[in-house]
Amino acid sequence: MILPELIQRRDKIRRLMQQQNIEAALIACNINLLYTYGRIISGYLYLPLDKPARIFVKRPNHIKGEFVHNIRKPEQIIDILKEEGLPIPAKVMLEADELSYTDYTRLAALFPDAEIANGTPIIREARSIKTAMEIELFRRSGAAHTKAYNQIPSVYKAGMTDLQLSIEIERLMRLEGNLGIFRVFGQSMEIFMGSLLAGDNAAYPSPYDFSLGGQGMHPALPGSVSGTAMKAGQTVMVDMGGNFNGYMGDMSRVFSIGKLTQKAYDAHQVCIDIQNELINDAKPGAVCEDLYHKAIEMVTKAGFADNFMGINQKAGFIGHGIGLEINEMPVIAPRIKRELEPGMVFALEPKIVLAGIGAVGIENSWAVNAEGVEKLTLCEEAIIEL
Amino acid sequence: MILPELIQRRDKIRRLMQQQNIEAALIACNINLLYTYGRIISGYLYLPLDKPARIFVKRPNHIKGEFVHNIRKPEQIIDILKEEGLPIPAKVMLEADELSYTDYTRLAALFPDAEIANGTPIIREARSIKTAMEIELFRRSGAAHTKAYNQIPSVYKAGMTDLQLSIEIERLMRLEGNLGIFRVFGQSMEIFMGSLLAGDNAAYPSPYDFSLGGQGMHPALPGSVSGTAMKAGQTVMVDMGGNFNGYMGDMSRVFSIGKLTQKAYDAHQVCIDIQNELINDAKPGAVCEDLYHKAIEMVTKAGFADNFMGINQKAGFIGHGIGLEINEMPVIAPRIKRELEPGMVFALEPKIVLAGIGAVGIENSWAVNAEGVEKLTLCEEAIIEL
Repeated sequence: MILPELIQRRDKIRRLMQQQNIEAALIACNINLLYTYGRIISGYLYLPLDKPARIFVKRPNHIKGEFVHNIRKPEQIIDILKEEGLPIPAKVMLEADELSYTDYTRLAALFPDAEIANGTPIIREARSIKTAMEIELFRRSGAAHTKAYNQIPSVYKAGMTDLQLSIEIERLMRLEGNLGIFRVFGQSMEIFMGSLLAGDNAAYPSPYDFSLGGQGMHPALPGSVSGTAMKAGQTVMVDMGGNFNGYMGDMSRVFSIGKLTQKAYDAHQVCIDIQNELINDAKPGAVCEDLYHKAIEMVTKAGFADNFMGINQKAGFIGHGIGLEINEMPVIAPRIKRELEPGMVFALEPKIVLAGIGAVGIENSWAVNAEGVEKLTLCEEAIIEL
Repeated sequence: MILPELIQRRDKIRRLMQQQNIEAALIACNINLLYTYGRIISGYLYLPLDKPARIFVKRPNHIKGEFVHNIRKPEQIIDILKEEGLPIPAKVMLEADELSYTDYTRLAALFPDAEIANGTPIIREARSIKTAMEIELFRRSGAAHTKAYNQIPSVYKAGMTDLQLSIEIERLMRLEGNLGIFRVFGQSMEIFMGSLLAGDNAAYPSPYDFSLGGQGMHPALPGSVSGTAMKAGQTVMVDMGGNFNGYMGDMSRVFSIGKLTQKAYDAHQVCIDIQNELINDAKPGAVCEDLYHKAIEMVTKAGFADNFMGINQKAGFIGHGIGLEINEMPVIAPRIKRELEPGMVFALEPKIVLAGIGAVGIENSWAVNAEGVEKLTLCEEAIIEL
C-alpha cells in the first residue's frame, strides 16, 4: 500500500478525532490496522493528531522502518513515546466495540491520566467513505466475483445437494482469487464463505443477523446449506462473500432447478424493480430510511410484503455498507437518517422468500459518486435455469 | 445435544465458579453458548450455581421451552429473573477476554451491586477437560480428517501452485463434511481453513501466533499459501483445521515434490521421534513444560535446534489444547506447569523448517485417558511423494 493512500485514510480519522478533541488513537484490531497501515500486524498503530503515525509491532519480526518500533508488550509504548519526545495525550481513543474488555482495560491503563473515548464508531465512520483506491479495489473484486458466478451453471449436476453445489462454487470463488475469509463486524456474527439457500431452507431462521438464514449442516454453524437435495421447481440463491483483496463485495443471484411457478418470476421481478427504483434515487443526499420505506411501499403494493426479507424471521434492513467487513455503514433500514455521500459503497438486497419455492431477488454492490451510483457486480440478473 | 451432556458441562463450570464464590454466570459468546447450550443463539445463557440454566434468546425466534425466555435486549434479563423468583447474584462472571469492552460494560451494568469476575478463564478451564461425548466427536472428526488427507495425492497435478493444491484440499475437506469455519480464541487470530506451506514459504513470518506462518496471497490475510509454484525437492506441509462437528481436530502431514535430500528425511524422522518419545511420557501427571523441554533437548542433540518451529520467527510452543477452538488449554510450552489430566485433548506438532526445502515434521491430535493418550488422527506419517 502506498503511503499517500494511508495518509489520506489516517487524515480522515484525524478530522473526526479533532471534532471530539481526541489527541491520539491507539489502533489494535486487525481490520483497522489493515485500513491505516495497509497490512495486518500483531501490534499497534499510534495515531497522534498532528504527528506521523507510529507502528509498534510484536509480530512479524521482520518489519523495520522509520517510525516502526519493535516491542514485546504494549506497556513499552509509553516509554517509547516519551523517548521520542511525543506528548502523552489527554484524550485517547481505543476500539471499545472491537477490543475485548481485558485488552481494552490493559491498553487504557497505559494512559492513566487520560480520558478514553470509543474509537470504533469514529474509525467506522471514516471507513464508510471510501477512497478512490478502495473503490478501484471493489471494482476488481466485483469483476472476479462476476467471473466466478458466471461459471456456476457449469458446475451444477442434477441430483446434487445444496452442500455439494456450494462446495463447487466455493472452489470457483477460490480459483478466481477469493481469499476465503469472510470478515464481519461484531464477535457474534459468523459465516463460512457466504450462503447458498435452496428451497425452503431460505426461510429457516438463524441466530445471525444476515439478510437470510438457513439451517446449516450442524448446530455448530447454524447458517447456509442444510445438506438437502435440490428439487425441481425450487430456487437456489447464491450469496457468497467477494473477498478478493480484503474488500468484501456482495452479490446474490438466483438459479432455478427447472422451471418455477409464475409467482416466483413475478416476485423476482418485484425485487429487480425495487432495486432499480431505489438505485434511481440513490445519490448524494438520499436518506437511508427513505430508500427502505420506498422498498416496503413497493413490495406491499405488489402483494409480497409478508414474504419480503424472510417469512418466519425477517431481516430488519434491505442494504448495508460494505468495506473491509461485510457490515459497514450506512445501513439501509428504518430510523437511519444518514444520507448517502460520494465514496460510500453499499450492497442493496431486496429479497422475497416463497414457501415451497425458496428465495428470489437480487443483490448488487454499488459505489456512490457525485451524480449517483456505479454498479460493481455485473452478472445477469434474471433467474438462471440450471 | 442431549440434556445430561449439557448438565455435565454446566456442572464443571459451576464447580469452578464455586471455588471463587461466583453465584452466577451470564454467558454470551457463541462458542461458550455452543458448549453450554449445544447450539448458537443470539442471546444469553444464565447459569446460577444451584438452579437450572435459563436461556434468554433474541434470535432465532423459534426457540421455545421450559426456562427459555424470548427477549429483545439484555436489560430485560433482570426483570425476568425477579419475576421468576431467582435471586440477583452478589458475584457474577462475564466473558471478559471475549466480549467487547462495550458489550461487557453493558452486561455488567445489569448487576450494578454485584462484583464482576472474568468468566473466560473459568469456562476455558472447564472446556479443557472434555466429556466422553466430546472425545467421541473428536474421534469422528479425526476419521473424516484422515479420509480427506488420504485423497491428497489424487488431487495433486504437476505444475500446480501451492494455492491450487490448497483449493483442491479445501474441497476434499468440505466433501468429507468439514464445516469450513476455523475458530480461534483471541480476536487477533485469523486464518481461512488452515495452512498449506510449500518450500521456503514455510519460513515466512506471519503476524499470527500459529505454529508456522506463510506469506499469504494478499496483505489482507498474511498467512498460508503465497501462490508460488511447487518445485521438485521441496516439501508441502498440509495443516488444515478439522472442524467436522464443531471440534477442531488438528493434523499436519508432509508431502514432497519428487525426492528430497537425506537431510529432510532425517529432520522429519527427528520430529517423529520427538512425537513418539513425548507421547510415551504423555499421561496424567506429565507436566507440559517438561514435555516441551524434552523436545528441545532431543532436537538440539539431533542438530536441528535452529530450525525447530521456524527459522526467522519461531513458535513458542510445540503443542496446544484443542476443542471448539484451535487454541485451548493446555499449551505445551516453557513455563507451563500444568499437568496432563484425563479428558484433555491436545495437538502435538514438532516441526522443522529447512531453507530451500520447506517444513517437515508431524502433527497429530491426542486425547488423554487414565493410562496415557489415544491418537485421534490416523494418517500415514512418513513423507509422501507426490
